[in-house]
Amino acid sequence: MDILKQYIQEKGRVTDGNILRVEYFINHQMDIALFNEFGKEFKKRFGDVKVDKILTIESSGIGIAAIVSQYFDFVPVVFARKTESAIISDDTYNYEVYSYTKKITNMVRVDKELLKEGENILLIDDFLANGRAAFGLAKIVEQAGANVVGIGIAIEKGFQPGRKYLEDEGVRVESLAIIDYFKDGKVFFK
Amino acid sequence: MDILKQYIQEKGRVTDGNILRVEYFINHQMDIALFNEFGKEFKKRFGDVKVDKILTIESSGIGIAAIVSQYFDFVPVVFARKTESAIISDDTYNYEVYSYTKKITNMVRVDKELLKEGENILLIDDFLANGRAAFGLAKIVEQAGANVVGIGIAIEKGFQPGRKYLEDEGVRVESLAIIDYFKDGKVFFK
Repeated sequence: MDILKQYIQEKGRVTDGNILRVEYFINHQMDIALFNEFGKEFKKRFGDVKVDKILTIESSGIGIAAIVSQYFDFVPVVFARKTESAIISDDTYNYEVYSYTKKITNMVRVDKELLKEGENILLIDDFLANGRAAFGLAKIVEQAGANVVGIGIAIEKGFQPGRKYLEDEGVRVESLAIIDYFKDGKVFFK
Repeated sequence: MDILKQYIQEKGRVTDGNILRVEYFINHQMDIALFNEFGKEFKKRFGDVKVDKILTIESSGIGIAAIVSQYFDFVPVVFARKTESAIISDDTYNYEVYSYTKKITNMVRVDKELLKEGENILLIDDFLANGRAAFGLAKIVEQAGANVVGIGIAIEKGFQPGRKYLEDEGVRVESLAIIDYFKDGKVFFK
């Protein structure tokens, strides 16, 4: 998706060699016109599947998922909650997710009322790197007896194992920009 | 706003006497068609002011603010980050906010690059109760030398002091549903 690649090259910042910071248009300040382009593109790519609900995870996935819903007949968007407490709650589906970015383990939770058996769930997130968060969401959908129809990602780090990890679980992955490598503070795409 | 009041009465749940839970359409599952109605209504109420940017706070404000932006010429939406660390960062505007709901103090932060002197900022949030989070956002805007043109709230607890606290600071408050009181698990509006 050319417009996103252009944004990344113009407004993204590469720090510490391999960290891409997109706070100015995705995950601190949100460019809502850009998010609408994401919505159009995800609708093209997932136009062949029935989507009953979108599932994302707080916080950075929420804005994108909200806008994307508008291209899928305004289906409800559920955002999973992250808590540092590892206590299992009976009212929620729970899955433990390790964050490489923050170096902590979170319990990811979704209220059991919000995912029903047989529903078709599209996962949405801003980044795919190691794929742990996305994998946790897929496992929660599985606990509910619902189906993951795929995952729509804005930016994938193609040199990290997230895609393989998800595809091995049978999850279809669609990313709008796939980063091949960083060099001298610049971003190169696949 | 009648449609929101109807949602609250039909899909909200009152627990522990005075806690209104709206997870099924606002702050865990999001009804995006409803959020679009919020956007139209906020545009009516704030149609007289110039808005350069929307500021909200993670996580529950993000989805509403993203949709509302579409009714204000797609202005950028910044969401403040909440961290439990009280350490002041030089790169961010910081304000300490006590959460009555969670009984913890968070540091609320916005990257200094994202708020500029003289900008007109519309605050958006899902709830107004004690007003501490909203007050913190207003203080952050003030630190940046920008102007708060008002705050748009989905649900205000009219029996708590948030509105007075903000109005005493000169902040214009517009709420889509103002709760007068709870009785026998039912919600009564002003």
